[in-house]
Amino acid sequence: MPVQPTIVGNAVLVVIDIQKSAFMDDKAGIPIMPGYRANMERARGVVDAAHGAGIPVVFIQEIHRRDMVDYGRELDGTEDVHCMEGEPGTPPAFEEMGRLPGDYFIHKRRYSAFFGTELEILLKGLKAQTLILIGGLTDVCVHYTFADGHQNDYYCRVIADCVGGSSLAAHEASLRAMEYLQTGAVLTADQIMAELGGRSAAAA
Amino acid sequence: MPVQPTIVGNAVLVVIDIQKSAFMDDKAGIPIMPGYRANMERARGVVDAAHGAGIPVVFIQEIHRRDMVDYGRELDGTEDVHCMEGEPGTPPAFEEMGRLPGDYFIHKRRYSAFFGTELEILLKGLKAQTLILIGGLTDVCVHYTFADGHQNDYYCRVIADCVGGSSLAAHEASLRAMEYLQTGAVLTADQIMAELGGRSAAAA
Amino acid sequence: MPVQPTIVGNAVLVVIDIQKSAFMDDKAGIPIMPGYRANMERARGVVDAAHGAGIPVVFIQEIHRRDMVDYGRELDGTEDVHCMEGEPGTPPAFEEMGRLPGDYFIHKRRYSAFFGTELEILLKGLKAQTLILIGGLTDVCVHYTFADGHQNDYYCRVIADCVGGSSLAAHEASLRAMEYLQTGAVLTADQIMAELGGRSAAAA
Amino acid sequence: MPVQPTIVGNAVLVVIDIQKSAFMDDKAGIPIMPGYRANMERARGVVDAAHGAGIPVVFIQEIHRRDMVDYGRELDGTEDVHCMEGEPGTPPAFEEMGRLPGDYFIHKRRYSAFFGTELEILLKGLKAQTLILIGGLTDVCVHYTFADGHQNDYYCRVIADCVGGSSLAAHEASLRAMEYLQTGAVLTADQIMAELGGRSAAAA
Repeated sequence: MPVQPTIVGNAVLVVIDIQKSAFMDDKAGIPIMPGYRANMERARGVVDAAHGAGIPVVFIQEIHRRDMVDYGRELDGTEDVHCMEGEPGTPPAFEEMGRLPGDYFIHKRRYSAFFGTELEILLKGLKAQTLILIGGLTDVCVHYTFADGHQNDYYCRVIADCVGGSSLAAHEASLRAMEYLQTGAVLTADQIMAELGGRSAAAA
Repeated sequence: MPVQPTIVGNAVLVVIDIQKSAFMDDKAGIPIMPGYRANMERARGVVDAAHGAGIPVVFIQEIHRRDMVDYGRELDGTEDVHCMEGEPGTPPAFEEMGRLPGDYFIHKRRYSAFFGTELEILLKGLKAQTLILIGGLTDVCVHYTFADGHQNDYYCRVIADCVGGSSLAAHEASLRAMEYLQTGAVLTADQIMAELGGRSAAAA
Repeated sequence: MPVQPTIVGNAVLVVIDIQKSAFMDDKAGIPIMPGYRANMERARGVVDAAHGAGIPVVFIQEIHRRDMVDYGRELDGTEDVHCMEGEPGTPPAFEEMGRLPGDYFIHKRRYSAFFGTELEILLKGLKAQTLILIGGLTDVCVHYTFADGHQNDYYCRVIADCVGGSSLAAHEASLRAMEYLQTGAVLTADQIMAELGGRSAAAA
Repeated sequence: MPVQPTIVGNAVLVVIDIQKSAFMDDKAGIPIMPGYRANMERARGVVDAAHGAGIPVVFIQEIHRRDMVDYGRELDGTEDVHCMEGEPGTPPAFEEMGRLPGDYFIHKRRYSAFFGTELEILLKGLKAQTLILIGGLTDVCVHYTFADGHQNDYYCRVIADCVGGSSLAAHEASLRAMEYLQTGAVLTADQIMAELGGRSAAAA
């Protein structure tokens, strides 16, 4: 039983690192779980629903300079060189996600979308209280963005079948960790689309 | 096989939220895994080894004001009221951990020891490059401190048998997540004490 | 003509670095302008007015560890060693300022009260929109706290005769700089006390 | 007499908000002092000297979205709508400044180049210790970037005849405020070019 309503105040949809590579066969650099691509394709429906409900959409892109000055410690672990500027998989999947002109775009150099970015500036400008997260990796960029959103006092929601992890086990563990932080945080695409659809109808 | 040496440059031991409650029977507010207390008791050996090797020790305490103004979203999930100022379990376990006069102390209001604290100021002052993490919860404060340390370019290490989680499954999942970020990050108390002992001998 | 009302939404009074040294003859370490002490004494009236109006009061203290690890670059300029822990001038001037039990207290290691502190966490918890600043130095801690408050979207006000600078010229230049950022930001003690008194009466 | 050498460790040149508008007749939105354009033209020599000495150059651009969501409180003061995306004065003055392919570029939404940006990530990647600042406004973006650089432990230098203020008085007051923070911080173009030229010769 959720402690809080699914959406409190103004909601914002944050599309985390759904980049061209998600729709390519070669994901060199980052491991992904089975079904990753299907979850990214399903995410499109949530973007459309947010557009329909008049909810701001923010596209986040991880990107690193080709001189590799801004990878920090990101190559000390499982991930190899990834999201490099100029590579074919690095641009945001704007077409696949149905981006509209009024959508926002922010790039980042680290995992959390709050770290070293203007996201908090934008969210304050939008007077956002609830963040809806989709994208990848569930156990890296989504999880750490959720944690920072949580610590910044946002109501955070994550759409379980519109995020994908480095492995199925890591994906599920991070969903449990997010649910631990905010009861009712983990939703399905159907649930959030119904919620947004209701808002859309009410606004019409 | 670790990508980096266990300790790079100056190391700092960060003792996360080992508070009096860890040694009390009633941990009201926060779930803990079996063996939690034993791991906290084992942590004392790592603190002693750091002292012996001349490595700075930073005690972190989570504490919340009694008017509850600074809990943020921390009561929206699994955790109940916790770490409240004035409660018997809230003071740091300085005696149990063998704190020495030159050790540092920082309190925090959120999960990550970097969030809204002076930790980064202190680490820059200490010219630290490697962080060694012990304490709890593995899957909350330790994990999110590790993630922020990682994003701030520190070499991060976590001592698996000196941290404790909200459940065994959550503990293990977070250890795997930290190892994912930095290969070789997860060590045992014996391993880090041997490493620190070697430094101590070399310095003598 | 101010662009915005003097107080928008919830206000918070931020008392910056009014420490025991302000009421001592020896201010070793930091230069102060003529009339500094009189302005600090006048500040008491604003604290009382905030208490009367039910406006939260946050006391900020600059303090540095005796091992000097956290001075950063603060000794590279005009200021000498200052605000050291354990020195008689370093404790907050709680008695002189009439601190009440419900007031908040935050220490800092740098000039801006936002830098490496929990201030933003507290202000979010209080749902603050307007910050009223008193204390010192006008041209250092007050000015940089104002700038950060401004950049964090707060309506910022500074009470000209309740702040004091390193010199009269520096004090006046910083007041002009704050007025440049937010028209109507610079007020007198009489003006803000009238404003707060009106709120108090309205609430009664 | 400076407390510290002019350049300590690795230096980085930060070119703050030298945008096309600096070389246009209409600076709508922001007041500027007499001689502003001449100082911006002089800045080119410092950029060239940095290139010659192999010192990284970071171009900073202030830019705001056309829907005005990210202006924060920036329109509450003296400045009118400024640096809007799509306006002719908003692009960085890359041509006038002689930008080279290896130079860095970061945009910002607030005054300090550290606020809500990746600047600290980049500086850590470059292992920078000294920041050399040129651009504008002396009393706004340059001053607040200097203050944040200072608080982040960087050695900060500002080139007095390559920065321009909102008025001559404000320009001079901010230079004095920066010199107050770090003695020897305020230099001329000739001085820094001689320093960089010496480094270039030594490296050759």
